[in-house]
Amino acid sequence: MGPITNPYYSPEFHGEYEVVGIGRLDLEDGGTIPDCHLAVATFGTPGDPAILVTTWYSGTHQIFREQYIGEGRALDPSRYFIVVIDQIGNGLSTSPHNASGANEGIAMSAFPKVRIGDDVVAQERLLREHFGIKALELVVGGSMGAQQTYEWAVRFPDKVKRAAPIAGTAQNTDHDFLFTRTLTDAITSDPGFAGGEYASNAEVAAGLERHARMWGVMGFSTEFWKQRVYTALGFEDMDAFLAGFLQPYFTAMDPNDLLAMAWKWQRGDVARHTGGDLAAALGRITAMTFVMPISEDMFFPVRDCVAEQSLVKGSELRVVDDVLGHLGLFAVNPEFMPQIDSHLRELLETPV
Amino acid sequence: MGPITNPYYSPEFHGEYEVVGIGRLDLEDGGTIPDCHLAVATFGTPGDPAILVTTWYSGTHQIFREQYIGEGRALDPSRYFIVVIDQIGNGLSTSPHNASGANEGIAMSAFPKVRIGDDVVAQERLLREHFGIKALELVVGGSMGAQQTYEWAVRFPDKVKRAAPIAGTAQNTDHDFLFTRTLTDAITSDPGFAGGEYASNAEVAAGLERHARMWGVMGFSTEFWKQRVYTALGFEDMDAFLAGFLQPYFTAMDPNDLLAMAWKWQRGDVARHTGGDLAAALGRITAMTFVMPISEDMFFPVRDCVAEQSLVKGSELRVVDDVLGHLGLFAVNPEFMPQIDSHLRELLETPV
Repeated sequence: MGPITNPYYSPEFHGEYEVVGIGRLDLEDGGTIPDCHLAVATFGTPGDPAILVTTWYSGTHQIFREQYIGEGRALDPSRYFIVVIDQIGNGLSTSPHNASGANEGIAMSAFPKVRIGDDVVAQERLLREHFGIKALELVVGGSMGAQQTYEWAVRFPDKVKRAAPIAGTAQNTDHDFLFTRTLTDAITSDPGFAGGEYASNAEVAAGLERHARMWGVMGFSTEFWKQRVYTALGFEDMDAFLAGFLQPYFTAMDPNDLLAMAWKWQRGDVARHTGGDLAAALGRITAMTFVMPISEDMFFPVRDCVAEQSLVKGSELRVVDDVLGHLGLFAVNPEFMPQIDSHLRELLETPV
Repeated sequence: MGPITNPYYSPEFHGEYEVVGIGRLDLEDGGTIPDCHLAVATFGTPGDPAILVTTWYSGTHQIFREQYIGEGRALDPSRYFIVVIDQIGNGLSTSPHNASGANEGIAMSAFPKVRIGDDVVAQERLLREHFGIKALELVVGGSMGAQQTYEWAVRFPDKVKRAAPIAGTAQNTDHDFLFTRTLTDAITSDPGFAGGEYASNAEVAAGLERHARMWGVMGFSTEFWKQRVYTALGFEDMDAFLAGFLQPYFTAMDPNDLLAMAWKWQRGDVARHTGGDLAAALGRITAMTFVMPISEDMFFPVRDCVAEQSLVKGSELRVVDDVLGHLGLFAVNPEFMPQIDSHLRELLETPV
């Protein structure tokens, strides 16, 4: 089946962005994207020192526009040229649901396997060819964005001056792999998924809702639910929060796109570059690195991030306290962004 | 549809046990079990001081026979008459899949909603009428067994001298409710489940396997996977452990039975007795109580157990260290049972 339309993936929901073609992208796992496009949102003035922001599972550039970037913030467009690049498969960049034209042959279930390394190769090409950017003051991203950040720092050490992986790891854990499998199980087990050849994401609504509830279990912390933090967001109980926030958030999305990202997430591993030797891979990093796990994260726990941080020369551990856990990344806790800003500001002010 | 056969629920897999009829059981939520039977395994000599052991989700008396009870252990049949009662819905006691004879009208999807309180009422009747037991030296159980332990201590304070809830809570949390919902989602979403009217659990194998993988995510700890603890159990990697242990463990079971237990688990709450006032309910406990969470438990976290322990007069907190997390209850870690024995021995030696 060919690509399908999904109104969620539009400026109406994600603000202004540019879609930039970078040509053919041969993939690490053997497939090819004939004409890869990356969605990009930029902030600030081209020519200023450049910062790259990478995106997480199900996320786009828009959360960074809304929560992370602004004058007076660490990610200050009056001081830096900030480029947020949407990851392949996120629904705005080339993805299963939107693969058309030269990419029509890889639409939907025919989409090839894309790895974190493919994203980083594509991003480097885009920054160099489209923006003329050859070095980055900072690469920063959360969750799968942290995977990309580590990949950047290991693969292109000369181009990355500073790195800030937030709530993510350089080498995905087995536990994370299994959690992600339960997410993909929820989608692919829906009869409406039809092997990836559904006509609309609405046909997979039940699977997407189960997927959303899994996020409810692992994405927040036990203490988030205990303290009924969602009441501060205007929801009166857990069911209302699920029905009013988590479920609609995911049911709007494309199932194949989520699966493409999930497959990629499961296999994030910088040790691919060093025959499986994680210490050797992380030892290649020359960027000044702040490793920033979230205190209550249930699947990128602080101790997993500490273990990697200890392998990065000159790095610092900066734990972000947030009862929201992993989805603290949404920055709805008023105490979240001040911590992020403080750490990133200090990192950006550190001479390298 | 009438009851179905399932060879897992037999002495071949659960050793010797007795099935005792306690007659009609009117249930808290309005339904009735016309002729309730409870499976019971006993250890020691009737007439000796009695100990009640309660069972967890998916569990039976057999794990206690194999791992917890024995001469020289805290649960010593040469000193105590130990009665392990299988919870309603666990496949050995009256359960959806085995409801026959007078219970045929409540087989399979027609099974009524059973609460923790119904189990405890049934257990008290059985102990009194069948064994002549009027007071218990100790009630002990893990997980849903802890829910029953708390219910006993709150509902029958005069009958419970000591209580040891392990890895469980008196009032189920929203987070636990949601985790359990993802378990039930995995089962009920399988087309083979057919609204509970499948002809064999094999028809729901895919759903039961997804359910097993959810347990893989939440039942152990992130550190269990990180340290590859399963290699000590003879499995070479995560997939082998899932395929050789967790998945077959659950696919042998009856889907409706699991759902009956899950519904009960979700609603465990001693504050039903006090109009929602948890402090008042736990304030009724007169038993000497050791609250025993497992250090790495991801869904009955230590802090949730501490919060309840602080409401039980004279109680003590005894954290059990185990990297296995919640499923440390299986007692496969050689350092698990010595801790349990030590705490229970001290509790049993405490004069009350």
